[in-house]
Amino acid sequence: MEKKEIGAKTYLYPMPTVLVGAAVGGRPNYLAVAYIGIAQHAPPMLSFALGKSHYTNAGIRESRTFSVNIPSEDLVAVTDYCGLVSGSRVDKSALFTNFYGKLKTAPMIAECALNLECRLVQALDYGGINELFVGEIVETYAEEKYLTDGLPDIQKIRPIIFSMHDNNYWKVGEHLGKAWSVGRKYRPAGG
Amino acid sequence: MEKKEIGAKTYLYPMPTVLVGAAVGGRPNYLAVAYIGIAQHAPPMLSFALGKSHYTNAGIRESRTFSVNIPSEDLVAVTDYCGLVSGSRVDKSALFTNFYGKLKTAPMIAECALNLECRLVQALDYGGINELFVGEIVETYAEEKYLTDGLPDIQKIRPIIFSMHDNNYWKVGEHLGKAWSVGRKYRPAGG
Repeated sequence: MEKKEIGAKTYLYPMPTVLVGAAVGGRPNYLAVAYIGIAQHAPPMLSFALGKSHYTNAGIRESRTFSVNIPSEDLVAVTDYCGLVSGSRVDKSALFTNFYGKLKTAPMIAECALNLECRLVQALDYGGINELFVGEIVETYAEEKYLTDGLPDIQKIRPIIFSMHDNNYWKVGEHLGKAWSVGRKYRPAGG
Repeated sequence: MEKKEIGAKTYLYPMPTVLVGAAVGGRPNYLAVAYIGIAQHAPPMLSFALGKSHYTNAGIRESRTFSVNIPSEDLVAVTDYCGLVSGSRVDKSALFTNFYGKLKTAPMIAECALNLECRLVQALDYGGINELFVGEIVETYAEEKYLTDGLPDIQKIRPIIFSMHDNNYWKVGEHLGKAWSVGRKYRPAGG
């Protein structure tokens, strides 16, 4: 086994593929984002990175709200499209059926399987090309068809997996095991 | 289409499954983490959330370094085991072949497909049950067999996908499309 140094890059696998929504000048805009992760379990928070030059950032600051919309496999083309074109040039508000929730100002995508409505908590700048937005999830919206026993079901949602640097989208595959369970049978060597 | 409010929870799909490593009192310790995401493209940074009560946190603070190790499917049982037992009760340093890189103090797992060696930038506390660690990726380590044209290959890495709340691990599935590409053919309705 020989490990090579392959460089300092954003080599996290897998990454999700979501559409971050915000109203910019009152108009819904959506951006494809893979640099996103959960930041706290309770109260529930997430963080995501946006290039400082993006059109959406001003909208997030303006309303101090945003949404994270989780598209299913069948929305892969329009999701990719949202990453290719800037809201400064193209009106993306007509791509989807927009709706609003409790916060009233964060546009969400009816066609997406899950919608996380968020309140901006902090915008962090670590001096590089992105800024990191931290937000609290205040509500989640889903149709019954994406749920099993009231919980989101990844096999019904069929979210899009992203692999960075080679730029590919993937489906979720087979079941591998139950968490907090398959490890119970594990016995360390010599243990 | 009727959207239901399903509550404010950490409903992000998919999530990765990684092992965060740090030396605690000089001894390598590893913890299973799904609350993790990229925080900046350049310089490359990531953030992850750990319960404040976890054993690993002190080790990250102590050395101001940590590692993010990406296990393949075949390591699912030991990965889950690392999430079930605390380093305060069980010595996890013998579970893997440990190695060190440039920073000298962040233990990494030779058996994992990818190893991101990180320097702690900031620990953030938003008042809830977790703290959010932000770190800079200073180097990545991989064996040649996980690379294609010098880049990590998700099909060779076979990382573990996690679905929170129903607590399941999943494999990466079929190819769905090329990013910054499948959207080029997309034409908005009426456009």
